[in-house]
Amino acid sequence: MNLHVVILAAGQGTRMRSALPKVLHPIAGKPMLAHVLDCARAMQPARIHVVIGHGAERVREQLAAADINWVVQAEQLGTGHAVAQALPQLIGADQVLVLYGDVPLLKPSTLQKLSEQAGSAALGLLTVKMRDPTGYGRIVRDIAGRVQSIVEQKDADAEQLQIREGNTGIMALPGSQVNNWLSSLSSDNAQGEYYLTDVVALAVDQGIAVEVAHAADEEEVLGANNRQQLATLERIYQGRQAERLMAAGVTLADPARLDVRGEVSVGQDISIDVNVVLEGKIVLANDVVIGPNCVLKDCVIGAGSVIRSFSHIEGAELAEHCEVGPYARLRPGTSLASEARIGNFVETKKAVIGPGAKINHLSYVGDASVGARANVGAGTITCNYDGVNKHHTHIGANAFIGSNTALVAPVNVGDGATTAAGSVINQDVPETALGVARARQRNISGWKRPVKPAN
Amino acid sequence: MNLHVVILAAGQGTRMRSALPKVLHPIAGKPMLAHVLDCARAMQPARIHVVIGHGAERVREQLAAADINWVVQAEQLGTGHAVAQALPQLIGADQVLVLYGDVPLLKPSTLQKLSEQAGSAALGLLTVKMRDPTGYGRIVRDIAGRVQSIVEQKDADAEQLQIREGNTGIMALPGSQVNNWLSSLSSDNAQGEYYLTDVVALAVDQGIAVEVAHAADEEEVLGANNRQQLATLERIYQGRQAERLMAAGVTLADPARLDVRGEVSVGQDISIDVNVVLEGKIVLANDVVIGPNCVLKDCVIGAGSVIRSFSHIEGAELAEHCEVGPYARLRPGTSLASEARIGNFVETKKAVIGPGAKINHLSYVGDASVGARANVGAGTITCNYDGVNKHHTHIGANAFIGSNTALVAPVNVGDGATTAAGSVINQDVPETALGVARARQRNISGWKRPVKPAN
Amino acid sequence: MNLHVVILAAGQGTRMRSALPKVLHPIAGKPMLAHVLDCARAMQPARIHVVIGHGAERVREQLAAADINWVVQAEQLGTGHAVAQALPQLIGADQVLVLYGDVPLLKPSTLQKLSEQAGSAALGLLTVKMRDPTGYGRIVRDIAGRVQSIVEQKDADAEQLQIREGNTGIMALPGSQVNNWLSSLSSDNAQGEYYLTDVVALAVDQGIAVEVAHAADEEEVLGANNRQQLATLERIYQGRQAERLMAAGVTLADPARLDVRGEVSVGQDISIDVNVVLEGKIVLANDVVIGPNCVLKDCVIGAGSVIRSFSHIEGAELAEHCEVGPYARLRPGTSLASEARIGNFVETKKAVIGPGAKINHLSYVGDASVGARANVGAGTITCNYDGVNKHHTHIGANAFIGSNTALVAPVNVGDGATTAAGSVINQDVPETALGVARARQRNISGWKRPVKPAN
Repeated sequence: MNLHVVILAAGQGTRMRSALPKVLHPIAGKPMLAHVLDCARAMQPARIHVVIGHGAERVREQLAAADINWVVQAEQLGTGHAVAQALPQLIGADQVLVLYGDVPLLKPSTLQKLSEQAGSAALGLLTVKMRDPTGYGRIVRDIAGRVQSIVEQKDADAEQLQIREGNTGIMALPGSQVNNWLSSLSSDNAQGEYYLTDVVALAVDQGIAVEVAHAADEEEVLGANNRQQLATLERIYQGRQAERLMAAGVTLADPARLDVRGEVSVGQDISIDVNVVLEGKIVLANDVVIGPNCVLKDCVIGAGSVIRSFSHIEGAELAEHCEVGPYARLRPGTSLASEARIGNFVETKKAVIGPGAKINHLSYVGDASVGARANVGAGTITCNYDGVNKHHTHIGANAFIGSNTALVAPVNVGDGATTAAGSVINQDVPETALGVARARQRNISGWKRPVKPAN
Repeated sequence: MNLHVVILAAGQGTRMRSALPKVLHPIAGKPMLAHVLDCARAMQPARIHVVIGHGAERVREQLAAADINWVVQAEQLGTGHAVAQALPQLIGADQVLVLYGDVPLLKPSTLQKLSEQAGSAALGLLTVKMRDPTGYGRIVRDIAGRVQSIVEQKDADAEQLQIREGNTGIMALPGSQVNNWLSSLSSDNAQGEYYLTDVVALAVDQGIAVEVAHAADEEEVLGANNRQQLATLERIYQGRQAERLMAAGVTLADPARLDVRGEVSVGQDISIDVNVVLEGKIVLANDVVIGPNCVLKDCVIGAGSVIRSFSHIEGAELAEHCEVGPYARLRPGTSLASEARIGNFVETKKAVIGPGAKINHLSYVGDASVGARANVGAGTITCNYDGVNKHHTHIGANAFIGSNTALVAPVNVGDGATTAAGSVINQDVPETALGVARARQRNISGWKRPVKPAN
Repeated sequence: MNLHVVILAAGQGTRMRSALPKVLHPIAGKPMLAHVLDCARAMQPARIHVVIGHGAERVREQLAAADINWVVQAEQLGTGHAVAQALPQLIGADQVLVLYGDVPLLKPSTLQKLSEQAGSAALGLLTVKMRDPTGYGRIVRDIAGRVQSIVEQKDADAEQLQIREGNTGIMALPGSQVNNWLSSLSSDNAQGEYYLTDVVALAVDQGIAVEVAHAADEEEVLGANNRQQLATLERIYQGRQAERLMAAGVTLADPARLDVRGEVSVGQDISIDVNVVLEGKIVLANDVVIGPNCVLKDCVIGAGSVIRSFSHIEGAELAEHCEVGPYARLRPGTSLASEARIGNFVETKKAVIGPGAKINHLSYVGDASVGARANVGAGTITCNYDGVNKHHTHIGANAFIGSNTALVAPVNVGDGATTAAGSVINQDVPETALGVARARQRNISGWKRPVKPAN
């Protein structure tokens, strides 16, 4: 079946009170429209048409992709008018699915159902049973259960107002009728707009079957017109992520306090504590433990590794049985071999840390490699930047970097070498040697400190 | 209209299990009574009378203000008795509004409605439709809908128990009747107390109109008698703040995980991540992004500035396009010019940072000024304190402070000057000079480190 | 009464998708089975029998205790079969309480009620009124209200399906019947299992009284079969802890954002901000204030002490009026005397800090004692580790440690002594002396810094 998808994304979203086009407002860090595109792509359509208007350039730029045909709707004259802008490109379609750029939680499985139900000959409607359908178009059926019409709230009589099956606006149009129907729409109504829902009446008139598919729940067809609704969608989305992870066997201390903004792959028996944020592409192996208040982005955490509270990990790869944090900041290019330990108030960046090596306290290790079982003392700083270039520091296996050592890169501390506490090391230290660069201590007795003035 | 407000704030609040007088327990960091005072002041009354009793001195001290007439109720003999203590000061009032120091969420708009409804001639009652009115006085009306009486739970018959309109206790008394009514109250009841609600019967008897205004919802007339109720009020209050910010166009990652304790002014397209606490007076300009787990107090954040996770900002002013955090602590007197950057594990205090300057890692910069585009290396410490006095450090524009530099204040590093990594700088460094104060490195080969005893 | 408890803990818990036996999955950091054991122990039974099967060894090891008789059920043939494994050890029991290792929220008071209700002669059933009993066995009673039978969902007729009193499975068996009844159970049913609930029919047949006790609510008899249910139990448990603390007079900024995993003792007027985690044994004295996002484990906090945001405190003891944080990490063996202050990005470990002493910024103080009113400057590091041994640092009363001082232990800084900023102190500094160990500064004018290549 030659399937086309049309996504309506031209609205301004005035109630967002934003300079950003509505469909670019994010859910889980990703524009709403990108979520809809994901759903559309899951159908493997021949072509995706996105109808843009307000902020068209920005939308197009931000979501540029080869499989999208951008269609500009210069004036917003209703949903029917919007789909009609894509008409020239819809020639040859067997089915045209109509989606909305501000309805981002629709599940591919639901869309699949709608598409199959309708096929290429019928008009497919996605409807949903609503707790409170006020404001929504009601699905009016005849005695045999066949859809007769969609009646808008303001036109509904008392009996129709009781109907709890509401229209989602999401449709599957038979390719053969699209041109015909869209051309027949009229704007002869209070708003002076062309309504896509009017095709239902056309189908019924013409004796073309109207097939209905049901959304799993109201949540997946909610749209966002203001920040409150955006927040509602965000929490629904996050609830789904928590549910998915728990179903996969992850223990969550509080499903309501997890935020996933990307893709998380999980092994067995992972435990995630409260108030954790996971962004980008995250891989968690078996038995990983993530403590409270951690932020992880684009990282791989090996089996049995423990991330303690308040850690911030980005672009890092940890092997198995590492221990990190609390208050560890691993920046991009950090790689920890097995059983490496990074402690509190430590920042690493482009740092390759060998197995069993430890950087436990108050250090900055950037553009560096640290050998197996090396111990980097508290307050160690790799002086990697000369104002223009970044230079490399190498610390050999089993080296012992004394506390408060400044390592002026480029510099190499050999295997098994030692640096004395408080040294500024700007020359290489050979294997097993001690590098020391500090002044001899003098004690001056009876030192007069400044005193507080008597008052 | 000569308007007086009487706020009842004498109760002990035994169920709070606290040494603090009940009305001083905070909602959003501010005593409940202060919220009620805010509401009262919005009415621009001629005078506000606050009836205090338990912990009177502490209440008076903490909320001292010129517009408050403190009235001490030595014995707590009921609400009627409490208002009566203010009688001598109510002479000449056209209307007397009675509020409660432990009902802090009342909205000024509701109070305004009550006051207008009642005017100076009628008795005004604030009532509310309740989901479950158990325990509350019910508003009994006649066939014409006129209030006949307030019937307490224990005195209500089966039909009256069905009434869902409950008494909030908040009233507008006609000035002309106050003296008369309060003097007529009797304590001839089970509790031996003088009940203010008895004025309703007096008004009905005397043919004085009883006008009713409705609270918007039950939430705004809830009181706090224990810590659970206090927490409930806190969350309602916070829900309102989140709602207000979203309505103003702020994106909140989770409205249930934002705490506002003060006043927040916002520009357009601000984004606030989960678990953020905003205290005091906060100004956020357009496009500000606040990451997860940040605490901000009394600060101004310029347009496009980004605050990363785990940052703690207090008494600071940031110009536009600054980047701060993660784990940045900006203390009072910190001022960042545009595009300044403060990174992880950095503390600043009384620090004026020039445009484009960077302090990216593990530093303490206090009592200091840093020129434009200066770069302050990792582990830099301004040694500003001699045990008695604080001294100033100045770092010039384009200066480069090497890592692990200690700057012993008072000291001046000139424009374009450099300090060598690991130096203790206790003299000024002239413009474009290099200041170096460190020992030469020696390597001692074959260094014997302590070894683990074989066991 | 000779009371025995049998806890069924042999299930695999396939739906947990875990390598961990089901009953070892934690609620509030403690295995579910441990919670059930706590409840059982509150009854002071003569003996506790735990029936284990899947992961038997691991369960036994992790919860080893002298008062437990471990009974292995090699094959899982139903609840009746499980209890029967303990039969040889139940001789002489007056009453046998049957509990479940995956139903961890049962309250001792409820179990007490069940035990008393049943006594040694009757069969006691714990039932609960359910909002939706679908899937549960229904308690069928005769006209006199006597229990007739438990009808399973699939066997229930339309009328029985209306019954909202559900079976919890928790029972009190009369000791005199246990042997007899368990031997009479049959596995002649669809599952081929021996059901403990079949004893109800036996009791009714034999004219033995069936006494019913009601659980306080559905929550206390919920079990966990998957991670979603585990999370539900966790949040119920945490809600109870928050409720308990508020009832004791603690102010919680958000009861839904507190996690208690252990035992918390509280004084009066404590305030706990959002997103705090309390683990292990915690003692909070009067007027303690805990800021947002703190993690505390096994610690004692003295009266009036303030813990600021992002602090991580473990195994520490704080006297009164200490101030800690933000971003303070106190590790085991830290002891603060009154009015001591630990500031941001400071780590302490085995550190005894005297009254009024201050360590305010970016320091590591481990294996150390700090005298009264000493001031430890920013960036101070105790170099306590030589790669094998830990050595002690002593800082005397009123000492002043200059910023960026490295103290190479073992070392002693005398009372009232001073160290110069940036010094490496590896010899003792006598009382009131100044210890200095740093190089003299030179300035090299016209220093050529690396320049960015023009491009």
